[in-house]
Amino acid sequence: MSEPLFNTVALIGIGLIGSSLARVIRERRLAETIVIASRSEETLARARQLELGDRYTTSNGDAARDADLVIVSVPVGASGQVARDIAGTVKPGAIVTDVGSTKKSVIEQMQPLIPQGVHFIPGHPIAGTEHSGPDAGFATLFEGRWCILTPPAGTDAQALAALTGFWQACGSMVDRMDPDHHDLVLAIVSHLPQLIAYNIVGTADDLETVTKSEVIKYSASGFRDFTRLAASDPTMWRDVCLNNKDAILEMLARFSEDLSSLQRAIRWGDGDKLFDLFSRTRQIRRSIIEAGQDIDAPNFGRHVATTDGPDGAE
Amino acid sequence: MSEPLFNTVALIGIGLIGSSLARVIRERRLAETIVIASRSEETLARARQLELGDRYTTSNGDAARDADLVIVSVPVGASGQVARDIAGTVKPGAIVTDVGSTKKSVIEQMQPLIPQGVHFIPGHPIAGTEHSGPDAGFATLFEGRWCILTPPAGTDAQALAALTGFWQACGSMVDRMDPDHHDLVLAIVSHLPQLIAYNIVGTADDLETVTKSEVIKYSASGFRDFTRLAASDPTMWRDVCLNNKDAILEMLARFSEDLSSLQRAIRWGDGDKLFDLFSRTRQIRRSIIEAGQDIDAPNFGRHVATTDGPDGAE
Repeated sequence: MSEPLFNTVALIGIGLIGSSLARVIRERRLAETIVIASRSEETLARARQLELGDRYTTSNGDAARDADLVIVSVPVGASGQVARDIAGTVKPGAIVTDVGSTKKSVIEQMQPLIPQGVHFIPGHPIAGTEHSGPDAGFATLFEGRWCILTPPAGTDAQALAALTGFWQACGSMVDRMDPDHHDLVLAIVSHLPQLIAYNIVGTADDLETVTKSEVIKYSASGFRDFTRLAASDPTMWRDVCLNNKDAILEMLARFSEDLSSLQRAIRWGDGDKLFDLFSRTRQIRRSIIEAGQDIDAPNFGRHVATTDGPDGAE
Repeated sequence: MSEPLFNTVALIGIGLIGSSLARVIRERRLAETIVIASRSEETLARARQLELGDRYTTSNGDAARDADLVIVSVPVGASGQVARDIAGTVKPGAIVTDVGSTKKSVIEQMQPLIPQGVHFIPGHPIAGTEHSGPDAGFATLFEGRWCILTPPAGTDAQALAALTGFWQACGSMVDRMDPDHHDLVLAIVSHLPQLIAYNIVGTADDLETVTKSEVIKYSASGFRDFTRLAASDPTMWRDVCLNNKDAILEMLARFSEDLSSLQRAIRWGDGDKLFDLFSRTRQIRRSIIEAGQDIDAPNFGRHVATTDGPDGAE
């Protein structure tokens, strides 16, 4: 077996992403030692039970002390606090990165606090599920998914290569992007879908004319697809909304404008316009499947494993 | 093996739903003879290649002639034409039903044309996938899903029991509902989600600032969930929009109102309001899973069968 990429990796935050990293690092021996930090005693105890790391601490500063690579996986609103916690302990030459869904705000919060000589390279693996916490992670989460790095101007080439190699070793393909552009791209591919999902589930929940039991019974007709995203971690998503405001508001405005136009077509019975929209959206799905970012099985392949049809009974 | 429920079933329309019916009827021997009608020569030829039926015709009238049960599975806008086609041939005592996603409009189109002595009982199986055509069907599509019947006042009890028994034999649970209420329920659980999915995919497709290739590469962050619904049959969905206008406009108005409120919370940084909405929507997903209408595996269980993680590489 080849040498580990890093001696010591500190994982600050051990939720879905942090615990998936712990598992893939262990499984592929990407580091000699894994140090896990969580401010929650309970989460830390669970990480210990799951044997996700080699050392455990509630102090972010302690976790960062000996690390060659520090990966911050916390809700983006907590990034500044983590930077303050580790600023005094992280060693020169170490790489500090994160996995947050917004980059401009994380950079604003963290960069001014990271000491000279430490390589700060923000990142964002485009992978996840609706589940959260240390139990939710799994080693193949990053397999076949993109990871976007947003290195500041003047980033050390060797450090950048090391972090790129790390994500590739986790199974990812790596892209580089400007933080502003990252935040715009993510606003449309991730933040807007998430908000729309939360919103429609909220709208359904509020109806007086249709009961909750009806919504649940008949959800296989489309609604259930939205409930997956709407089951995601509320703290994480509150922080994303508060930290990528401009791009999200821009995308929301475009979405609402388009929805008004669709609404008008329905009101006035403009079948051709509806047909046009409903036809051109098919191509995007085909492209996503061709790019290996989703599967072609009907209904997302629910139950392929357990029944002879793509969406059989439970 | 027990006696088939019906001697002859005529399937008018042989797309996803019609061809799934053909398969389950054959597999569970629910009818002696299956007659398949499609106005498209090409679709009919494909149904014949797939050996979905016993007889094939492009004439809906011919198909209905000897049938004890006629099931109309066409886009809802074509229901009136089908009723005209079969009115002169369908025999007294036969049951005529449909599978359309709107019920008030189907009843208005069909009921006046169905002859006295024929039992007209509209229906709607709450099951489907994003795929369409005779190849897309499978015998377990209806397994564990609800089927809603909207029998008119004075419907013959025996005919209603026979149709109920048929859907149960297909694996469904059967509910009865008033057509108006059906259309309202479906507007929120199906039609609105579908429109929202089409709309967001359209919005993303139109962006000048984010490329199509970026939308596709990073779609695993949420967007891809919407593209499944947005790949559904455009004709079917155009007809649904045109035929359930009032209920859809009502749900769209509520959705937009809620979205404006969410947008305002983002603009003004109201984290508590965001957190509240994002928390309460989790419960609905849990209820849907408990009701057996979706699976609990992360990411809809994509790839459970082929990798050791819930969302591994292709």
